[in-house]
Parts: sequence; structure tokens; C-alpha cells
Amino acid sequence: MTDTATTAAAADPTPEQLQADPLRFGVGARITVAVMTDAYIETITDALGALDTQGLVVETGDVSTYLGGDEARLLRAVTDLAESIAASGHHASVALHLSRGCPGEAVCEAPGGAGARSVEAPAPRETGRYAAAEWALYPLADQPVADGVEPDHMRDISAAIELARDNGTFRGSAHFVTRLEGDLGTVLGTIFAGWTMVGRTVQHVTCHATISLNSPSHTEASA
Amino acid sequence: MTDTATTAAAADPTPEQLQADPLRFGVGARITVAVMTDAYIETITDALGALDTQGLVVETGDVSTYLGGDEARLLRAVTDLAESIAASGHHASVALHLSRGCPGEAVCEAPGGAGARSVEAPAPRETGRYAAAEWALYPLADQPVADGVEPDHMRDISAAIELARDNGTFRGSAHFVTRLEGDLGTVLGTIFAGWTMVGRTVQHVTCHATISLNSPSHTEASA
Repeated sequence: MTDTATTAAAADPTPEQLQADPLRFGVGARITVAVMTDAYIETITDALGALDTQGLVVETGDVSTYLGGDEARLLRAVTDLAESIAASGHHASVALHLSRGCPGEAVCEAPGGAGARSVEAPAPRETGRYAAAEWALYPLADQPVADGVEPDHMRDISAAIELARDNGTFRGSAHFVTRLEGDLGTVLGTIFAGWTMVGRTVQHVTCHATISLNSPSHTEASA
Repeated sequence: MTDTATTAAAADPTPEQLQADPLRFGVGARITVAVMTDAYIETITDALGALDTQGLVVETGDVSTYLGGDEARLLRAVTDLAESIAASGHHASVALHLSRGCPGEAVCEAPGGAGARSVEAPAPRETGRYAAAEWALYPLADQPVADGVEPDHMRDISAAIELARDNGTFRGSAHFVTRLEGDLGTVLGTIFAGWTMVGRTVQHVTCHATISLNSPSHTEASA
């Protein structure tokens, strides 16, 4: 047991190594696609089957599908998957859960000292599909980061909301969430941008969004 | 304007008043029910129409339905609604978002000094329906509370996980979530218990759960 512990300690990654490796840093998504049609199995299976998941770890479960990997690949895969579901024409609800900085379970047990992983907000892709979303963003730790930037998640969240206003997806606030509307790709890009921007000074950041596609309520709103 | 500001300041509630009033304390749920059938509109409308929401504020939207009120009424309504959907026999996914201690939007802007609202974990009701869920619990502030109990959300989360083990719903951890399985009512009771238990020492606590009902994958697991 002592030998094992010594070996493990010797192999402990540095903060820089943790930050550079999306999987070790716990960068990933859980996504649940619920399609409101009798043909839900083929609709979901077709969309997942056509998905390019190169560079991502994929684990499909009965409640959600886990995707692990860097932020740009995650946004691309989530956009492609949701666009494919939207293209089916069926009403669907997508539950999206993003996390970085803590590979743990229900409770954050952040590996101390990993620091913040700073990446550019991944570029969104417009899809021509309308989406309405409710979005909650959680900075879960405010430890000082190595590069001397003071943690200030309010500053970064404000920047994320500002980005949503600038790109036209911001539609106001409701209990516990911010409402976004617009092109599906731009809405997802906003969600990812908020998550990565807060993550520049906070190690562990999660967000949850519920995204409605092809709702009967959206007939007039859809472009 | 000055008069208004003065009036508002004079009416500022005390921490005790905030804690005693579920709506002022921001106790509520957002729930999205996605039923995977062509008959989703009538299935959802029937379930919502039959729901006893006495004592709760209800706001129905295109992305989710907001329910505001005390924890026991919320658990009863969420259990009744999910049971009703489960009874339809259709495969469904329920996205549940609980929050207390902060009526704000995407970003927590907790009203300072409200302190923790301490309530008993509401009693669950067994439904005879099987559910599988993925659950994430977020203590979002660790301010000292008025009654001298030191904030220690790890202690309370551990107690919540222990409760899930004791009542048989705990099925292990996955990336970013804890997996629960069992009777739908007991699973929901576990989720509410974790949320309220952490809330005894932390003002702002949210949780998110995705709950799968009548999944084709559950045929063998269902009782």
C-alpha cells in the first residue's frame, strides 16, 4: 500500500498538466434529448449515429449521454446533435449539463490546486433553427488562480450576459434562470461562452440549460 | 424617487421574515416534462390539469413550468405530476431544477444576510413507479448563518448521500452526477432531502436532476 501511494504521488499531475488536458480537468457535457414523437427511438438513434464525435469520449446511458473532451469539440457535437433533432421537425426538449474543473459526482470534490483552465470561447455555428432556452450558470469555487488574476466571477458572468445581449440571444430573466432565444447555434454558443469565460478565473464551473426545439408555441417566433 | 426608496428601505424584511416566507426566500422548482409520444400535448395537459397546486405559485412557459412555495408542497406536486406522466405508460424525461435562497437569474445575486432556512426534509410518497435519475447538488454560498452553526456543506451533502444509501436509491457516481434508482417517489424524496439538508447551513442551494420514466431500458429493472 505504501508503494502504491508513493507511485501515485509521484505521478500526480502538475496544475499546468491538468489545465492542458480536458479529460483530466473534467471538461465535459451530459445531454438528454427527449423527442416528443412515437418515433423517438429512430429519431434519437439516427441523430446520434450521424454525429461526428472524433476527439471526444462518449458514454451513452439511459438518462443522458456523456461527452468528454475540449470545449470546441463539445460545442460542435452538441450543436450538430441538436440541429439534427431540430431538423426532424419533432418537438424536442434538450437538457444540457456542462462541467469543467471537477470530475466528481453530485458533490464538488475539486482536485485542489488545478487552477483555472483558460480557453477562448468556442466559435458557434448558425443552424437556421430557432431555439428557446433557460440557462443557469454556477461558478463553484473562487480560489486564487496561479497567474495572478484575482477571481471575480461576477465580472465574468456579467461579461457573459453582455455577450448574450450583444449577439441578440438575451431575452430576460425568470426565476432561477436567464432566458435565451434565437438561432440554436448562437444560443448554444452563448451558453458555452458563459461557461468558458467564467472558467478563466474559477476552476470549477457548471451550467445547466433546458432547450426547447420545434415547440408549437414557437410557430410565430421561428424565422 | 427618494420617497419610494425610503419606503422600500423601511419595508426591507428581516432575515427571520425572509426565512419564514418560501416565496421571499426564493423556494421553488422549474420542471420540464418531455413525453416521447405523438400524444404529448394531451398527456402533459392532462397531468398538469389534474395537479393539485394549492398553496403554490404556478407559471407555465414553453421551456418549463415554475412552481413556487414551500418544500413539502413542491415535493407533493412534483411527485404527483411525475407519477401521472409515468402512469401514462409513455417514455418520458423530466428535467427538475430546485432552488432556494436566491430568487435571481443565471447568476446568484443572493440577498445578503437572509441566512439559512432550516426545514425538515419533506416526507416522500411511494408511487409504485420505477425511476432512474442523475442528480447534481450545488451549495452556492457558505456564509455563516445566524444561529451559530458553522457552514459545512460537505457534512450535509455526505448526510444526503448517506440518506440515499439508506433508502436504497443510491446507485453510484458518474461524471458530474450521482445516479439514483428506485421508486419514483423515493428518488424525488432523496433529491429534495439533499437540497433541504444542505440548506440548513447554506443560504443558496440549487440542484438539478434528470429523471427517466418508462424507458425501454428499464423493462427488467421495473418492479
